[in-house]
Amino acid sequence: MKRVRFRDPAGAVRAGEWVETDGTPAGADTAGSGGRITFGDREYTPEEVTVLPPCEPTKLVCVGRNYTAHAEEMGNDVPDRPLLFLKPPNTVAGHGSDVTPPDRGRIDYEAELAVVVGEQCRNVDRSAATDVVAGYSCLVDLSNREDQRAEQNWVRGKAFDGAAPLGPVLATPEHVPDDANIELRVNGERRQSGSRDRLIFTVADLVAEITRYLTLQPGDVIATGTPEGVGPLADGDEVAVRIEGVGCLSHTVSMG
Amino acid sequence: MKRVRFRDPAGAVRAGEWVETDGTPAGADTAGSGGRITFGDREYTPEEVTVLPPCEPTKLVCVGRNYTAHAEEMGNDVPDRPLLFLKPPNTVAGHGSDVTPPDRGRIDYEAELAVVVGEQCRNVDRSAATDVVAGYSCLVDLSNREDQRAEQNWVRGKAFDGAAPLGPVLATPEHVPDDANIELRVNGERRQSGSRDRLIFTVADLVAEITRYLTLQPGDVIATGTPEGVGPLADGDEVAVRIEGVGCLSHTVSMG
Repeated sequence: MKRVRFRDPAGAVRAGEWVETDGTPAGADTAGSGGRITFGDREYTPEEVTVLPPCEPTKLVCVGRNYTAHAEEMGNDVPDRPLLFLKPPNTVAGHGSDVTPPDRGRIDYEAELAVVVGEQCRNVDRSAATDVVAGYSCLVDLSNREDQRAEQNWVRGKAFDGAAPLGPVLATPEHVPDDANIELRVNGERRQSGSRDRLIFTVADLVAEITRYLTLQPGDVIATGTPEGVGPLADGDEVAVRIEGVGCLSHTVSMG
Repeated sequence: MKRVRFRDPAGAVRAGEWVETDGTPAGADTAGSGGRITFGDREYTPEEVTVLPPCEPTKLVCVGRNYTAHAEEMGNDVPDRPLLFLKPPNTVAGHGSDVTPPDRGRIDYEAELAVVVGEQCRNVDRSAATDVVAGYSCLVDLSNREDQRAEQNWVRGKAFDGAAPLGPVLATPEHVPDDANIELRVNGERRQSGSRDRLIFTVADLVAEITRYLTLQPGDVIATGTPEGVGPLADGDEVAVRIEGVGCLSHTVSMG
């Protein structure tokens, strides 16, 4: 199932289902030919509703340097345990959002596979980690590189409003293959392409390590890190992340 | 007014008021002679209820090195803008909690004046900052120094479950003088004593700087930093933070 949260034409927030009508993944076609949104006996085209982020995290626990080639492009060593950082709920932005970072300077895109947590959990064993995963979504970890480099903790650099576009759907695990492709395009041009099976720390590793320290709640997100090919955005750029089995999340940036 | 959230004897969560009956601040006297908790026409002694954290933050935005003498004791320079870091909601623990940090190693106490936000706000001018402050509470920023020193972002070190004991009440601003004393005791022995007027960045400075980047929500917390005198805790220690005009927050730690 592909779950989609949306605001219906009357303004009510609904938890519906994305039904692919011709194989086009959710979000990929803004003309709406790719699917329908259903809620009970109602059916909507994507144009009739506002697609909202597929979950409401109390926190996003993010992982840095989780692909070897990305660690290398940033001039960093591969860490011996996950490099963790936090994005609070104000960072979440929906499919189709326009994000305006507060500071000037270089804003980089980073495409990531987002894990959405399904139940409250703590001290989860690696072998049971998939039990607590509700599904997957697409995430962009927007990063102000100048702020990030000036800070001990990446708050101004990665926790600003809208710094985590997320969506368009939550795809349950059976949709997403172990080697799912993660691809990012800027204005239609491919800039990143990676595969889930290239993660240094797997989803199970991350759930186990994070829940040694933090209780996760339903709707919380683990952002699993970005493959190589990160780079800067310019005013008006359109960013699109497509993950195999999930769909396509797109947003724009306004750099003033 | 001193607001107190509590669970009543029937298990219902209530937002009541702390009424001092003999001038003893909230939380200071676990024998309960210092006050009563009222909700509508009901009145309880502190022993009859479970005191809960006074607010439910979506995030805690914390400030490091905000007292000159503490920056010096840690061998750090005084920053030219606030050093920010984040604690997610899983860190919040109530008055009277027992906190068990997940990692062995040195766990330090840090007493802090907590600002509780009263309304959703972004880009607040310094001159209007007090308008968005609902009031003040007491906070302990529990920190695992070994984890903190090993990490870029302080997640294992400062974001573990229970790493932010908070309470016992939210005191509205008129109760808390500009030079309110902030004092921490371990097993009754005074270890920290500071004054709000010694903050390098004032509450207004912090609200303005943080809301340049992050929208704050009602119930969100700004932890304003700790005065000098931080130090390690041992298994079974009782920590008590008293802030003039607020009350006294106490908790214990279990180090296994």
